[in-house]
Amino acid sequence: MRLDVAYDGTDFSGWAVQPGRRTVAGVLAAELVRVLGEIEGLTVAGRTDAGVHATGQVCHVDVPVAAWAGRSGNLVRRLARLLPPDVRVRVATEVPASFDARFSALSRRYEYRVTDASWGADPLRSRYLLAWPRPLDLAAMNDASARLLGEHDFAAFCRRKENATTIRAISQLAWRREPDGVLVATVQADAFCQAMVRSLVGALLAVGDGRRPVPWPAGLLDRTVRANEVTVAPAQGLTLVAVEYPGSEPGYAARAEITRNRRSLL
Amino acid sequence: MRLDVAYDGTDFSGWAVQPGRRTVAGVLAAELVRVLGEIEGLTVAGRTDAGVHATGQVCHVDVPVAAWAGRSGNLVRRLARLLPPDVRVRVATEVPASFDARFSALSRRYEYRVTDASWGADPLRSRYLLAWPRPLDLAAMNDASARLLGEHDFAAFCRRKENATTIRAISQLAWRREPDGVLVATVQADAFCQAMVRSLVGALLAVGDGRRPVPWPAGLLDRTVRANEVTVAPAQGLTLVAVEYPGSEPGYAARAEITRNRRSLL
Repeated sequence: MRLDVAYDGTDFSGWAVQPGRRTVAGVLAAELVRVLGEIEGLTVAGRTDAGVHATGQVCHVDVPVAAWAGRSGNLVRRLARLLPPDVRVRVATEVPASFDARFSALSRRYEYRVTDASWGADPLRSRYLLAWPRPLDLAAMNDASARLLGEHDFAAFCRRKENATTIRAISQLAWRREPDGVLVATVQADAFCQAMVRSLVGALLAVGDGRRPVPWPAGLLDRTVRANEVTVAPAQGLTLVAVEYPGSEPGYAARAEITRNRRSLL
Repeated sequence: MRLDVAYDGTDFSGWAVQPGRRTVAGVLAAELVRVLGEIEGLTVAGRTDAGVHATGQVCHVDVPVAAWAGRSGNLVRRLARLLPPDVRVRVATEVPASFDARFSALSRRYEYRVTDASWGADPLRSRYLLAWPRPLDLAAMNDASARLLGEHDFAAFCRRKENATTIRAISQLAWRREPDGVLVATVQADAFCQAMVRSLVGALLAVGDGRRPVPWPAGLLDRTVRANEVTVAPAQGLTLVAVEYPGSEPGYAARAEITRNRRSLL
């Protein structure tokens, strides 16, 4: 079964279960067991770090068919009543046994939100928006971002990890300024190594406020180990927004759900 | 001095100072005194109830000219560092002594957000979005809303209060469904009596989910006292978004601030 999940990461120690910590997988698995009786495995597309949010996270879990067959709408409704308000299952979909939330994924897409307004972050958005104390130059950040597109060894932007590749292909990395002045980065790649999005954002913010020149982030791509001069941007600005699978548009399931709700009014 | 203020009302006991309670006016006045040395009065356009949010609240305060003259940008920046993240002063503007945040206001505009998605409220928006357990009929709610427009005695939708008029003129009351499925009501009037917006929304939600017929809310306009069958919708969905003054568009000051930030990059 595929589950499309959203959460406010503020009060979670990340996705992955850790003893004695409140994690998204831990909270979710507990309620799934309560509703479905038994579940096996809980595999996620993007293992988000502590404090990172998601609107389009995807995971899969093996459940006995008898426990839920044909009642995925009911399951979503029941979970909405059981789960705490900072995590929601948006859609539950029956999928072939071959579907693997992690290994079937073609790409992950994140957004990072930062404001450079002198008054700081809108209180209604401050849980998922970083306040930056200096003005940010959108054009310079987009110029530096464009130079990072494509397949490279992103070792400079990865936390050191034995035996893991740091070669990744970034298909999208661009900033826009929304009507309310908030800057939003969209970053899409086949996959990301740990803290990679936040390291890229940290480097680009240094360009944006003038502390580093435009070519600097791309210049780090010839490093083979982490660049310690790159600051990891705070988790609070980061949200996993979509995971793409073969034959699907990112986020298609959530849109289908909205359409269903509308139809039920006719 | 005019202050444009935004806050997340969740952890406040409303705007007005109350002994022993955390209120927006209490928190704001404490920091204004710290920065400006002394202030006199703190008059607000809309005295929001406990739990109600604001993105476009306006207040005024008398301060010694020497304490801040010409440094309103600095004041906003200093307050951003001092205030807790759930309240922000967006803009500070020098205004003529005749400006009164409450009595100069031509109108107040609120928004109310509610979702009828089966999966509940997006965790990143759940602090200012109400989750409704049944599907809502947008067309029926707009039909019922249109019948409430204009000047009427809204006693049925007001908390009882001695010697206060309950005659109000609603210039806008309409619902839209946003692309993510969330329903947003925009309500604008010259002024509102206590709990009036939430009472109107409560009545319209009863129409939206089919418990009451479309003509029911407008039918209550001939009452001269509060209609006890009207449920007051929860505060969490409600946000004061703009206050209009003579010679200004609502929210003009906040927009001017964004423009200034952008110009500083040129």
